[in-house]
Amino acid sequence: MPKIVDHDQRRLELVDATWRIIARHGIEGATMRDIALEAGFSNGALKPYFPTKDDLLTFAFRHVFNRTNNRIALTTFNQTGLDAIRALGMEVLPIDEEKISEARVVIPFWQKAVTDEFKMAIHRESMEQWRVALKRHLGEARQVGAITSAVPDAVISEQLMNLFLGAQITAALSLPEDNLPAYTDQLDGFLKNLS
Amino acid sequence: MPKIVDHDQRRLELVDATWRIIARHGIEGATMRDIALEAGFSNGALKPYFPTKDDLLTFAFRHVFNRTNNRIALTTFNQTGLDAIRALGMEVLPIDEEKISEARVVIPFWQKAVTDEFKMAIHRESMEQWRVALKRHLGEARQVGAITSAVPDAVISEQLMNLFLGAQITAALSLPEDNLPAYTDQLDGFLKNLS
Repeated sequence: MPKIVDHDQRRLELVDATWRIIARHGIEGATMRDIALEAGFSNGALKPYFPTKDDLLTFAFRHVFNRTNNRIALTTFNQTGLDAIRALGMEVLPIDEEKISEARVVIPFWQKAVTDEFKMAIHRESMEQWRVALKRHLGEARQVGAITSAVPDAVISEQLMNLFLGAQITAALSLPEDNLPAYTDQLDGFLKNLS
Repeated sequence: MPKIVDHDQRRLELVDATWRIIARHGIEGATMRDIALEAGFSNGALKPYFPTKDDLLTFAFRHVFNRTNNRIALTTFNQTGLDAIRALGMEVLPIDEEKISEARVVIPFWQKAVTDEFKMAIHRESMEQWRVALKRHLGEARQVGAITSAVPDAVISEQLMNLFLGAQITAALSLPEDNLPAYTDQLDGFLKNLS
């Protein structure tokens, strides 16, 4: 009986392995061999799925974005206004080990995207989704009087975007001894200052 | 008569060349050969200054940070409170071509720093300088009543830090057609919401 292989499943196993190897060794230190080993694949078994390291990285990064965006869709679907923004922030901000690890992966992606149009397009597409959601929820918050700031929503949503993106850098490049304020306090404080 | 060589000057020429090459080709695409060529050096003339590419990169990144911090010192020395924060922001935010180019260089640096303790230390040291300055100026702003927010200064200063860091990512990874709000409007709006 031929072995039934779930190719989508194998692809995701490879992505998880890629992600762990990059978080550990950096993007330059991550070899196809390491990634195959980590996923329990032979080196040759990788090629049919991802002919090049770049194919694998692009898929892995898209997967991290999609997973984040799926989490956002799940946690915000029955929320509006500031609650929805808070829920979105909780999925994006590096508040636990998994998300700090995602920050360590997204930085190498950004670095590649600076000189790679296709990767930049993946990033911009995801950011546009966040912006649209933030602006919608800011509008909802205004309607119920939870925001009274004279600053336009387009500006506020961009402040939030940059707060979220900057938090990835800070989380990946700080140590516990830096004793930085919690990201949740930063988000809550930001929203408080809008009222 | 022996040629008099200003070694500090030559080092800075190499750093400027490094910086231009990285902004153009990314950190992986930047070879010692390209950098030497860009600076008008022969390949061999580089070695006495920087034995390895990593030495050169570390020096170049430290130089970008120092230059930014010198600009901050210059423009904020006779300012206090919100004016000083605005002046600091103008030196850090990617509001002109030179600073957008710095953003394109700092991202590869961050990527390296994720898995390199020494580079992470350079980053953390610079960030600590900004934090200390921001907290001092927030305190000054409180004293004259320009800030009345109930959010603690430690949290506000970290929001500003992440806004500044996130802006580097956004500037390096967005296109004019994204039509994003100006960074100055984001900073001014942020400060307005503190009053």
